[in-house]
Amino acid sequence: MAVFIYKFGGTSIGSVERIKAVAKKIKQARDQGDDIVAVVSAMSGETDRLTSLAKEIQQQSIDREMDVLLSTGEQVTMSLLSMALIDLGCPACSYTGGQVRILTDSMHTKARIREIDDKNIKADLGKGNVVVVAGFQGIDDKGNITTLGRGGSDTTAVALAVALKADECHIYTDVDGVYTTDPRVEPKARRLKKITFEEMLEMASLGSKVLQIRAVEFAGKYNVTLRVLSSSFKEGSGTLITYEESQMERALISAIAFNRDEAKLTITGVPDLPGVASKILCPIADKNIEVDMIIQNIAADSTTDFTFTVHRNDYQKSKEVLEQVCRDLGAKQVTGDDSIVKISIVGVGMRSHAGIASNMFKVLADEGINIRMISTSEIKISVVVDEKYLELSVRALHKAFGLEKENV
Amino acid sequence: MAVFIYKFGGTSIGSVERIKAVAKKIKQARDQGDDIVAVVSAMSGETDRLTSLAKEIQQQSIDREMDVLLSTGEQVTMSLLSMALIDLGCPACSYTGGQVRILTDSMHTKARIREIDDKNIKADLGKGNVVVVAGFQGIDDKGNITTLGRGGSDTTAVALAVALKADECHIYTDVDGVYTTDPRVEPKARRLKKITFEEMLEMASLGSKVLQIRAVEFAGKYNVTLRVLSSSFKEGSGTLITYEESQMERALISAIAFNRDEAKLTITGVPDLPGVASKILCPIADKNIEVDMIIQNIAADSTTDFTFTVHRNDYQKSKEVLEQVCRDLGAKQVTGDDSIVKISIVGVGMRSHAGIASNMFKVLADEGINIRMISTSEIKISVVVDEKYLELSVRALHKAFGLEKENV
Repeated sequence: MAVFIYKFGGTSIGSVERIKAVAKKIKQARDQGDDIVAVVSAMSGETDRLTSLAKEIQQQSIDREMDVLLSTGEQVTMSLLSMALIDLGCPACSYTGGQVRILTDSMHTKARIREIDDKNIKADLGKGNVVVVAGFQGIDDKGNITTLGRGGSDTTAVALAVALKADECHIYTDVDGVYTTDPRVEPKARRLKKITFEEMLEMASLGSKVLQIRAVEFAGKYNVTLRVLSSSFKEGSGTLITYEESQMERALISAIAFNRDEAKLTITGVPDLPGVASKILCPIADKNIEVDMIIQNIAADSTTDFTFTVHRNDYQKSKEVLEQVCRDLGAKQVTGDDSIVKISIVGVGMRSHAGIASNMFKVLADEGINIRMISTSEIKISVVVDEKYLELSVRALHKAFGLEKENV
Repeated sequence: MAVFIYKFGGTSIGSVERIKAVAKKIKQARDQGDDIVAVVSAMSGETDRLTSLAKEIQQQSIDREMDVLLSTGEQVTMSLLSMALIDLGCPACSYTGGQVRILTDSMHTKARIREIDDKNIKADLGKGNVVVVAGFQGIDDKGNITTLGRGGSDTTAVALAVALKADECHIYTDVDGVYTTDPRVEPKARRLKKITFEEMLEMASLGSKVLQIRAVEFAGKYNVTLRVLSSSFKEGSGTLITYEESQMERALISAIAFNRDEAKLTITGVPDLPGVASKILCPIADKNIEVDMIIQNIAADSTTDFTFTVHRNDYQKSKEVLEQVCRDLGAKQVTGDDSIVKISIVGVGMRSHAGIASNMFKVLADEGINIRMISTSEIKISVVVDEKYLELSVRALHKAFGLEKENV
């Protein structure tokens, strides 16, 4: 008898009809003799509804009470799913984070799981019940309700998989797996049957938001077999997220990720003194602006040029901050561009193969695409190009690296 | 430093504006140095919204999961009220029933409170916090969420008043107190400054639904000073619900209650044998029909006539059941009337004064009103009259017993 964790996101259980469909799917699995623990998010729209109620009330966010408020979202879903299961003749029991005892630290709105008590859930599974657990939430050691932050339900699912030594953790989403690239850009994009945890991490942080990054890290660390599947329950769908295996080395790259909403800023002629990078970036961080790629070049006159990318929404604010920095440091000028995109190729195969970067740059050059920035990691190469080249770049790279064909 | 329990019902906190007004009221009291524990219901409409979601999902009500679902309603309100308080600079902290530890039995959807742990609340009050508690809900000894049934928030408030030895328990409602009768029927109806627990119980069960009957019983039993006040926070409003005092004896009757939605049924010529009452009423109870007044007369021919009243909605169903009973028992016939009302005069003064009943009957006779049924208790006399006489009866009795004038 295998133990499975099934996680359903907001859209998967966003209506009474969807909840009934999910219950049916779970019952099928239960009828085959497997133990099922379902982890649920709030119904889509519910978190937004609650958040806007809170916004009408409070000037500043009161984190402890926000957690009390938002945690009701999953509590509603878990009870409805249990009802739907029982209604189908499948015994079920729901648990809040506090009822399971998902013990977290006390960092309200972004708590981290410390420990999961498996006693109650195991007892219920032992009685033949399906157990439905509220995702996204826990309780601290003083009994305060905590939440894990947006997308935290994935983390709950993986943590439960660890605690219950589950055979597999299935994440049901709007998509039916992880693709070589976005099928809306490249219709030849192919669903990957397998991808490594490291590749998933690079994909996630690059904007292919299939899975919450913390959940992937967690799963990788604790050896949880993770599978991304379609919540439409299509047969044969899904991508297994797994460890690097020897036969996987043949695949040079696994996928092409991209991020549309980038903007870049450059400050030139900065006197090249120790600590200059932090003098440029700290004022940006102080405004809660997240910086992505960072590049620094030394110019001939022993000044330095410093370039970084931010989310396009933060472009204007970043520019204002940087102009002040420019005056303070006696730098030359600030330039910027808010119509750029980032494209990355990701693959564990890069580790053992040379020449992939130059191959990538050649593919783009052959299409007449000018590369504006480059950044690399062990299993990823990212380039920044003009927005207008996004589709062309993705398609050219997808073809050049043979991603439309299965790697055998 | 006094300790007050304030309870706010669904309409009192039915909108963001109302929640802010309630927060302001609580802050004023807190600023005067009093310790405040606020008990809140779900925002008006929320319980109905959740109930209809559940109805779409389940064929039969699954009580454990209904409690999980419905308890989210108060959890939302308690967090919003805490936010509003903190936003006003008034430190506050919210608690679910489980977090306080309001221990109940395991009768889901109609649980009874067994014990309240005052440790957390007292610690918070000690820190100068206002404590906001979800009404209506608790937790059983296995950690399951329970609810106390509709209107259970009043019971939570009274139970907390007992546990915390509060000086007063204030119930804020849509009305500004308890009246001598419904002001919509008799404009001269007067707000009572005081009423006894026993009178309140007779009023509540007669349809003047200001307070949940269980809460009144509870408060009476544990000596809690209860006050009904207007949630519009009008100055000088409210009715104190208190014990019988010697000076109160002068008031013969305190109020006139009535119930519009009554219907009466009579079965005549029933062979007068032991157990015949249960043979008539058990089939009615089996259909979940609640019976109110019951009267039995022995006729000359040693058969018996049996009359009882039910809610008007149950009239047709009751009649069908009774016709079957009539055939089974070999009784004569079933008659009925679904256009009757019940009018009651209530007052602890009746105990020490004779002749009130005959006075009441005379007042009605003088107006030409025919009395169809009579039922009495120690502090209440109820009569059934034709529906069309309701207003006339109430006004005549209100005047005859001098209720428009304050009893000094």
